[in-house]
Amino acid sequence: MKIAGQISIDDVPKMYPLLSRAVNPQYGEKGTRVVEVAGVRFGGDRPVVIGGPCAVESHEQTVGLAHAVKRAGGDMLRGGAYKPRTSPHDFQGSGLEGLCILSIAREQTGLPIVTEVMDPRLVGEVAKVADMLQVGSRNMHNYTLLAEVGRARKPILLKRGMSASLCEWLGAAEYIAKQGNLDIVLCERGIRGFPSGEYSRYVLDLNVIPAAKMLTFLPIIVDPSHATGVSAMVEPASRAALEMGSHGLLIEVADFSLGVPRCDGLQAIDATALARIVKFAYAHGVSVREPAQVG
Amino acid sequence: MKIAGQISIDDVPKMYPLLSRAVNPQYGEKGTRVVEVAGVRFGGDRPVVIGGPCAVESHEQTVGLAHAVKRAGGDMLRGGAYKPRTSPHDFQGSGLEGLCILSIAREQTGLPIVTEVMDPRLVGEVAKVADMLQVGSRNMHNYTLLAEVGRARKPILLKRGMSASLCEWLGAAEYIAKQGNLDIVLCERGIRGFPSGEYSRYVLDLNVIPAAKMLTFLPIIVDPSHATGVSAMVEPASRAALEMGSHGLLIEVADFSLGVPRCDGLQAIDATALARIVKFAYAHGVSVREPAQVG
Amino acid sequence: MKIAGQISIDDVPKMYPLLSRAVNPQYGEKGTRVVEVAGVRFGGDRPVVIGGPCAVESHEQTVGLAHAVKRAGGDMLRGGAYKPRTSPHDFQGSGLEGLCILSIAREQTGLPIVTEVMDPRLVGEVAKVADMLQVGSRNMHNYTLLAEVGRARKPILLKRGMSASLCEWLGAAEYIAKQGNLDIVLCERGIRGFPSGEYSRYVLDLNVIPAAKMLTFLPIIVDPSHATGVSAMVEPASRAALEMGSHGLLIEVADFSLGVPRCDGLQAIDATALARIVKFAYAHGVSVREPAQVG
Amino acid sequence: MKIAGQISIDDVPKMYPLLSRAVNPQYGEKGTRVVEVAGVRFGGDRPVVIGGPCAVESHEQTVGLAHAVKRAGGDMLRGGAYKPRTSPHDFQGSGLEGLCILSIAREQTGLPIVTEVMDPRLVGEVAKVADMLQVGSRNMHNYTLLAEVGRARKPILLKRGMSASLCEWLGAAEYIAKQGNLDIVLCERGIRGFPSGEYSRYVLDLNVIPAAKMLTFLPIIVDPSHATGVSAMVEPASRAALEMGSHGLLIEVADFSLGVPRCDGLQAIDATALARIVKFAYAHGVSVREPAQVG
Repeated sequence: MKIAGQISIDDVPKMYPLLSRAVNPQYGEKGTRVVEVAGVRFGGDRPVVIGGPCAVESHEQTVGLAHAVKRAGGDMLRGGAYKPRTSPHDFQGSGLEGLCILSIAREQTGLPIVTEVMDPRLVGEVAKVADMLQVGSRNMHNYTLLAEVGRARKPILLKRGMSASLCEWLGAAEYIAKQGNLDIVLCERGIRGFPSGEYSRYVLDLNVIPAAKMLTFLPIIVDPSHATGVSAMVEPASRAALEMGSHGLLIEVADFSLGVPRCDGLQAIDATALARIVKFAYAHGVSVREPAQVG
Repeated sequence: MKIAGQISIDDVPKMYPLLSRAVNPQYGEKGTRVVEVAGVRFGGDRPVVIGGPCAVESHEQTVGLAHAVKRAGGDMLRGGAYKPRTSPHDFQGSGLEGLCILSIAREQTGLPIVTEVMDPRLVGEVAKVADMLQVGSRNMHNYTLLAEVGRARKPILLKRGMSASLCEWLGAAEYIAKQGNLDIVLCERGIRGFPSGEYSRYVLDLNVIPAAKMLTFLPIIVDPSHATGVSAMVEPASRAALEMGSHGLLIEVADFSLGVPRCDGLQAIDATALARIVKFAYAHGVSVREPAQVG
Repeated sequence: MKIAGQISIDDVPKMYPLLSRAVNPQYGEKGTRVVEVAGVRFGGDRPVVIGGPCAVESHEQTVGLAHAVKRAGGDMLRGGAYKPRTSPHDFQGSGLEGLCILSIAREQTGLPIVTEVMDPRLVGEVAKVADMLQVGSRNMHNYTLLAEVGRARKPILLKRGMSASLCEWLGAAEYIAKQGNLDIVLCERGIRGFPSGEYSRYVLDLNVIPAAKMLTFLPIIVDPSHATGVSAMVEPASRAALEMGSHGLLIEVADFSLGVPRCDGLQAIDATALARIVKFAYAHGVSVREPAQVG
Repeated sequence: MKIAGQISIDDVPKMYPLLSRAVNPQYGEKGTRVVEVAGVRFGGDRPVVIGGPCAVESHEQTVGLAHAVKRAGGDMLRGGAYKPRTSPHDFQGSGLEGLCILSIAREQTGLPIVTEVMDPRLVGEVAKVADMLQVGSRNMHNYTLLAEVGRARKPILLKRGMSASLCEWLGAAEYIAKQGNLDIVLCERGIRGFPSGEYSRYVLDLNVIPAAKMLTFLPIIVDPSHATGVSAMVEPASRAALEMGSHGLLIEVADFSLGVPRCDGLQAIDATALARIVKFAYAHGVSVREPAQVG
């Protein structure tokens, strides 16, 4: 049967030659391109743990959490200044003010910052503050934005679209790479499936980790917060992701003493749980299981 | 069980008050807001049929097809000048030149034009030529683009994201509406499901048509070309969509005597099949089944 | 990438040689094997409409509905005596008593009966009453049952599993055919997808109809009641199914004056709506669109 | 919107009262019912590892593999004598002869046996040999079979249907429990989703493990072989499953020196990999993370 738009995964190297393991033999069968973000090394000798609030809500909240993430042993701070929300009437993030707060949090803690950018016209502005730019799940297919962040000369965290095939995800990464920027870290964050909403927010798709590693040399991390949507699942899902070969974790952390977060509080964990995850990450990392690394 | 990010469909009117039937009683239980595009009326007394090439490839191809669509009885011309492709190395559309060709095709045939815009910075430029701006499936969650087209004062064709819930789709439309532009036509184009790729490209989800009509007063049309991905299915799927209550169709048409289209040829039909669909649309339209219309 | 268990749809004729169009050229490219059930012809010159209650609850309810289906122009009576329910503590059907009631309903109306059998040990007993045996969606993969009904020398209505690929569905039919029984009618009844539960019960997958017709000569009908799960969608979905090429419909009908049905009342329609569907079926059937039939 | 057949996960305790944690407070918030199979304890102080061939093909193959599983430290032997295959023309298992071979393998190694039963009329026969009866994914909704194995007084391994909701899965278990048999072990084996077939066979759904533990006290294990369909993924998926809280693993093992297995060879691992998984299971088991156990 002839169907439009079908791509076999084995034909895809020609779709993403810049990022394909098959086309770039210098990485060998298992080598990873290490992506450095202000000294933090994705794909290096141990998994990276990124923690922080879903949204930057206030100076107190974000700077406080940054210190907590630092104390827990986290490597980087996450936090959204621009938030993609299902309704335009919901809180859309604190914008520029949020970027300033993130900047202060970095100054006080030394943690590099990853934050989302959604508007191609704001890439320059966000890149002034962020150490790493995040392209969110809803914008994975936004090729205009991908090309723009590709020109930004900052490392990019590229989340998987919530129903993107692996081929589409690698194609999206290739849009960034085509602009000369190969400092890309992939991030699995759960896919939409029939169980979505019954007992978890999305379906955590760990199979994609070894599959992605077979096809590309880019590092890949996991966001267990969105992938589960349930605070109590975040810690076991973090361990599972690392065992499956994830090069790191992106985790939403909240200080529940400040009240319920304005965004996605049901999937946040506290700093104590984060510290246990960091400890696990150090002890059980990818490096132990996959010694060969190519820089 | 508490899961982050869950929305019940019955709670959503507050997420899209501008477009919710429940919040806007002037449309009654069944009334549709008629969206006019240069004399073509979506949600009016008969379904609208839009035909044309997937991508504008050449003057000859597009102008020729415009005449063929006109002769077949089509109401509007579609054609992509900017094409979102999975790989950045594939043909990305002919851009400005394509817009010029569409302009000529309209001049010669009188058919209004709908064409996709992907870059918020190009909305003004595309809006100079297009009678209706299309936001494609891959950009349904691109809130930056949605706000920009909302400010463009042109009618918008908003395709459903390939795995968007109905709530997310209406939320996306609300981003446009919030800028003061309520001239929005929804377009179902197939969703991703387990059968995708086995015997059709996507799963044609006709249930969403009556569901959307219960929740909003916006007109809704169907793209049977992408929803099936198989030329032989396009005609029966068109009839099925109209019987399910679709206010129109967006169909890819090719002139196979010119060779295989550069993009998605396996889902295109010829002008003869389009003419049969137009005839069916005139005879079996929504107006027959749902007499009450609110303008 | 090598993955266990993968089957290309183009390789499948060898998986179901008895039912494959490619292997049985006597049916040509479009011919259908007509399956006769007590004079009712599936795949014949017009679509078949089957109506009746979800479950046989009482003599009054079922016999009353049988008369209503008859008056509405329906061809056959459906009704479950054995009901597969998610919980063992729910009403499981009226069993033997239900079969007796169905028998009386047939005697009074002349409508042939289709009813579900779940236990291979009861096939003989159910076959004494039923004119056609239904294998339900939950038992499509129950190969023991399939072989047993294949030996029963009664026509079989084989519902698609709620997440069965087309290949798996045809393989299930082949289990019946292998026992010498080729009187099989396929029935699409909605598939599980991410929208299940948001605005409809399942996703009505009409693309599978033309796809199945390309691969096999068996007739195929649609159950719009389960596929939508919403009474108001059943009538438009019935029309859509017929336009897509369905050879018939299996519809749940209720007499709401008797109170709410014990099972799936939200997806039932009344006899007046059924009569409209019958009228549409007679006027717009597959025969009009696909004249060539092979018996 | 009113949709037939909808069940909220929080309403389900009344659907499976025998197995619901909420209805059976003796298990507390985290306690597991230990299911014993000839001395092997599911839900006990360390995870259980079951290994063996997909299908029993020959005495040499199965007895050889049983010894290899034993040497690798495995707790139980798996092996199919009756195989559910998509096509009736494929190898259907060796039946009675296969049961005999399994019996010999147990005698020689002392490993208890789990094997699938598909026909309710064969439950007694299979139960004579098997220490634990497996109900496969395709028969999860086969309520006739579930009731029959419930009467068999043998522990049951109940695989999740490939698109079963958690509620449906627990409902299926309740059918067994209703017959007085509470010795049930759940087994997640991958679900059908859009990535199925692109880079893995099914989607490994680990989120269901903590979710199931919140709702029921039954032990739950994972089949990483089917859930991935790719040999190279089985070992990391096994570790991931254990970190997510799985009480054990069901793994397909092959002796590749004997040639390619007749069934699903692409997802089998060798005994050396099994030994590494066993070692991991002993060191990192659920007991470490969830000390409280209720028998």
